[in-house]
Amino acid sequence: LSLEEAVEGADVIVVAVPPLAMPGLFPKLKGIGEDAVVTDVGSVKSFVIEAARQGMGERFPQFVPAHPIAGSEKSGVEASAGDLFQGRRVVITPVEETSREALGRVRNLWEQTGAHVEVMEAGHHDRILAQTSHLPHMMAFALMEMLAERREAVKFSAGGLRDIARIAGSDPALWRDIALTNREALLEALQHFSEAMRGLAQAIEHREGERLLEHLTKGREGWNTLVKSMSKEL
Amino acid sequence: LSLEEAVEGADVIVVAVPPLAMPGLFPKLKGIGEDAVVTDVGSVKSFVIEAARQGMGERFPQFVPAHPIAGSEKSGVEASAGDLFQGRRVVITPVEETSREALGRVRNLWEQTGAHVEVMEAGHHDRILAQTSHLPHMMAFALMEMLAERREAVKFSAGGLRDIARIAGSDPALWRDIALTNREALLEALQHFSEAMRGLAQAIEHREGERLLEHLTKGREGWNTLVKSMSKEL
Repeated sequence: LSLEEAVEGADVIVVAVPPLAMPGLFPKLKGIGEDAVVTDVGSVKSFVIEAARQGMGERFPQFVPAHPIAGSEKSGVEASAGDLFQGRRVVITPVEETSREALGRVRNLWEQTGAHVEVMEAGHHDRILAQTSHLPHMMAFALMEMLAERREAVKFSAGGLRDIARIAGSDPALWRDIALTNREALLEALQHFSEAMRGLAQAIEHREGERLLEHLTKGREGWNTLVKSMSKEL
Repeated sequence: LSLEEAVEGADVIVVAVPPLAMPGLFPKLKGIGEDAVVTDVGSVKSFVIEAARQGMGERFPQFVPAHPIAGSEKSGVEASAGDLFQGRRVVITPVEETSREALGRVRNLWEQTGAHVEVMEAGHHDRILAQTSHLPHMMAFALMEMLAERREAVKFSAGGLRDIARIAGSDPALWRDIALTNREALLEALQHFSEAMRGLAQAIEHREGERLLEHLTKGREGWNTLVKSMSKEL
């Protein structure tokens, strides 16, 4: 069964491939019925929307870009979980052309999994996710690349390192794709993070205790904001 | 009851104050008995050893520097846990002057909590902990400082950010002390991490997919090393 045959007569098609595989896939969806809807679960949206626009031709309005913010570093069938989307957020990023009817169907589909749907502009989604997900993944990968050769050091890891490192267990090929397809927003987030790190390093280097304490206190305030947003969640 | 009175006649004194409070504390231990032992639980060892050497005078050989690698971002009596040290590592970093008898007693004390004791040189301990604990804390604080003003972004955080951010809930004053008293080792770790981040950023900026994948794959190998060291633990 080819992909073209498989999607013929389908009501809903969920595209769940790494970002760089998307451009090759959308042209194969040209033959879907005019009542079918196509949606995706990708972590980057502007790139995927462009790929769909280029690839799907006149079926493009039937594509509803979506991103369920859920999952883990694990992959494969064994990592599946029936309640994965319960109480989690799903962001839908329609464009002008997107059919309102298709949007409604995809929203309904996600709401049935117990997820909370939010609609926003694709570029806004990409900047937010660069900061809260793509940057933290790059941090974890970089830290573990640095520690990969230091086997003895790793023996003395406590909970902090283990937590921070967990997402470096994610699929490197998937994260290469995400990084390259959300390039500008990620580079901006990397730049901001690097400035925050430099602020700390300079305070440490110049033994400026007061300034260092200010930075660290702001960091803890950021954590408090996150904890509050978690507790009043959904 | 003053500190001087409190320690009079004590068998074992456990110093558990932030690093920068140590230099003011050790001189108050000059009046301890000649059979008493003093130990600490500080995250940095070379600095604490120097403070004890300066402050304790002829009682210095009775000081056994120690660091239990356990705990959480929480502080206060409410964060106490009876099994906190069970199966965890405690590093003891004696110096030439350290009494072997005192060392044996402190080792015994820790082993009774269910901890696994390892003896190493203080500078070695400090370099390892800079990489596996002090650097990750600075990363978490810097990330959350950067995100502190971005309340909307934080709403869309998934598990990765929450895990990585948790240790930014730690006490900023304690971490200022740790950073300043393990300054050189931490600056070196910050430098290495910054190079690893720059490697990723440059590959992304120049759209070098192969090079990016190599970095990320090494990062995942580092995570695998950590997982293996956790599974065959103690």
